[in-house]
Amino acid sequence: MRRLSALTLVAACTLFSGWFWQGGTLVQMFDSIDHHIATQFPDNPNAWHLASLRRVYQQPPSTWPAPQRDPDAVAADLAPWQRDSPQAAAAVVSTFSTTPTIAQVELGQRLFNDPILSASGQISCQSCHHPELGWGDGLSRSVGHNRTQGKRNAPPLFNAVHQRSLGWDGSASSLAAQLRNAMTHPAEMGVQTPDDIVRRLEQHADYRQRFTQIYGPAPIASSQLDDALIAFLGTLERPTTLDHFLAGDSTRLSDQQVWGMHLFRTKARCINCHAGPLLSDQGFHNLGLSFFLQASEDLGRYQATDNPEDAGRFRTPSLRHLAQTAPYMHNGVFRDLRGVVNFYTQGGGETRVRNDQEAAHPLYVYAARKSALLKPVALSAEEIDALTAFLQAL
Amino acid sequence: MRRLSALTLVAACTLFSGWFWQGGTLVQMFDSIDHHIATQFPDNPNAWHLASLRRVYQQPPSTWPAPQRDPDAVAADLAPWQRDSPQAAAAVVSTFSTTPTIAQVELGQRLFNDPILSASGQISCQSCHHPELGWGDGLSRSVGHNRTQGKRNAPPLFNAVHQRSLGWDGSASSLAAQLRNAMTHPAEMGVQTPDDIVRRLEQHADYRQRFTQIYGPAPIASSQLDDALIAFLGTLERPTTLDHFLAGDSTRLSDQQVWGMHLFRTKARCINCHAGPLLSDQGFHNLGLSFFLQASEDLGRYQATDNPEDAGRFRTPSLRHLAQTAPYMHNGVFRDLRGVVNFYTQGGGETRVRNDQEAAHPLYVYAARKSALLKPVALSAEEIDALTAFLQAL
Repeated sequence: MRRLSALTLVAACTLFSGWFWQGGTLVQMFDSIDHHIATQFPDNPNAWHLASLRRVYQQPPSTWPAPQRDPDAVAADLAPWQRDSPQAAAAVVSTFSTTPTIAQVELGQRLFNDPILSASGQISCQSCHHPELGWGDGLSRSVGHNRTQGKRNAPPLFNAVHQRSLGWDGSASSLAAQLRNAMTHPAEMGVQTPDDIVRRLEQHADYRQRFTQIYGPAPIASSQLDDALIAFLGTLERPTTLDHFLAGDSTRLSDQQVWGMHLFRTKARCINCHAGPLLSDQGFHNLGLSFFLQASEDLGRYQATDNPEDAGRFRTPSLRHLAQTAPYMHNGVFRDLRGVVNFYTQGGGETRVRNDQEAAHPLYVYAARKSALLKPVALSAEEIDALTAFLQAL
Repeated sequence: MRRLSALTLVAACTLFSGWFWQGGTLVQMFDSIDHHIATQFPDNPNAWHLASLRRVYQQPPSTWPAPQRDPDAVAADLAPWQRDSPQAAAAVVSTFSTTPTIAQVELGQRLFNDPILSASGQISCQSCHHPELGWGDGLSRSVGHNRTQGKRNAPPLFNAVHQRSLGWDGSASSLAAQLRNAMTHPAEMGVQTPDDIVRRLEQHADYRQRFTQIYGPAPIASSQLDDALIAFLGTLERPTTLDHFLAGDSTRLSDQQVWGMHLFRTKARCINCHAGPLLSDQGFHNLGLSFFLQASEDLGRYQATDNPEDAGRFRTPSLRHLAQTAPYMHNGVFRDLRGVVNFYTQGGGETRVRNDQEAAHPLYVYAARKSALLKPVALSAEEIDALTAFLQAL
């Protein structure tokens, strides 16, 4: 990586001074130098480089140096999430009314916390999605009905209502479908059908009254149960430190974090999959973490589609509120963000087989084919520190 | 705070050279200077001060500057925990055999993870004491039988077998008593008596066989259930970073952490209550966190003793493996260690009343009487950083 020396700066000043040295164009010249530094940012910047980078990123995002995306990446660039954006609003429209009412949200919150939704009456949605634990459970893999050890990490719920599909394998194409999955999975809440829950709610005078007030006097329908829960889930997002920065409050990120953001968008290659308001391309990628043919095997999206191409692919999670949602990955294999960063700098995991028989397995070639977006990246310890510091702001 | 300047050093060298400047006594002179620096350590040390402090703390603990303890503190100084110390060994002696066998430990581990120990069959010991969460549950206050919201933070179990009493109020004076509390509490595992569990275990062929192999063919007794669980709990301790440092591996602490350790033992006043191999005086102290007469009131040890003097007192927890056991305090009110440090630097909490009627409550004078060991401490941001960094090593 080239470094911009003081000499280069003097040369630049001399060369450009003829054109720029009048009125407001002096600012333009320094802008131009700052941008030059940003596009060829050194591995080991000094305070002057960092100040230069900060000035660039304090300008509106439209003026930033372009992110370094691979041609096959669908994700674009960082963008703030806004509660009142058309995208966000559309996602939380109630099935039964245009905007969820407070009564719907309150009913949904009560249902979310109530173990009446589980077969045993001992598990609520909150058991695996607790507000104190980033709407997860802090465990690598969740534990459900009859203390069954699940296979996957409980996803945080901050922006569940804004996801195109849900579950690590995308097996639910709507939030209502995902709610049904969680309620009826024998290792989660374990009920036979959501109608079993509805029957219990019907026998509960207070629930009966609340549903009537909101949805009318007809018997409670499972779609109303979904509606109330979704109304509550729609309230869980809130602005992040990065949102505030992107909205113009440049005090929110430290110099180190601005550097980390620049790395995120460029050399560290994160932006290839984690961009947009949700910091996700909403796609499915093979990171070499399927533990093919081992006891902990999980082929991810292949479970949902039966398409061999999908063997080992998992949904790109949103990175919003990332610092609160440890541990990480579909199987919670990393306890902290540094572990995740180290994993990606190595270009992800490897799918290995132990013998010829395993190598001949028809799914092996697919499971072993990692996403082309994964490449080893040589980051210094300081760069890893900066990137990890930035991830705290997501 | 006085700073030791280079000039002072030169003066010291000149003054003492007559006595010290021969053979090994040169080392002794520098030792003496290092100790002088340690005992008058500056608030804002430079690299030279830190190196000096490090040299002092790399010597055996018996040569360290004495900890600054208050006269009424019972705790002594930092000391390594050792698995084979007489103290540690005595604590894990089985009721039924001198040393727990592997079979006992394995049985205990299985029972610990098995929801058969709860009334609902949906909660195991692990539900609130999970190995991934420092043998706690990551929640400020635990949730038990019928999703009842408990009042207190689930304590980590690392050294439960070495505690003189258990529970935040010390209501259990033995681990067997604490096991009984957890199993029978209506907001924890909810069984009527441990014999209910024993009856279920008796009907389970594999358990029947395992108990017979270990304890003989007589019917399973609840004391055997306790014994196996305690055998398992006795295996949970392991050396910490500080243990390694105290045992002579000086590479384990950074300069910043050595500074933090010095603050812990001196100015920051932690050593008054958190000393010895378990980093606890095993006493009960009022920190001003009882939320007297408020909805979240918890009078702590008073619940166990009915002695007004105990109103608002809570057991001093061990700090071993502290970094893994967030959130902190009896009610989990602090999510991170910096919050805890800030709380103590302010001299703890305050017990306030809202009107004359509340002030006239017979327990008020007791609840409002904070431990004399709590005093505000003026720590700089750098000192708080150093102390927090040291706490990561516990």
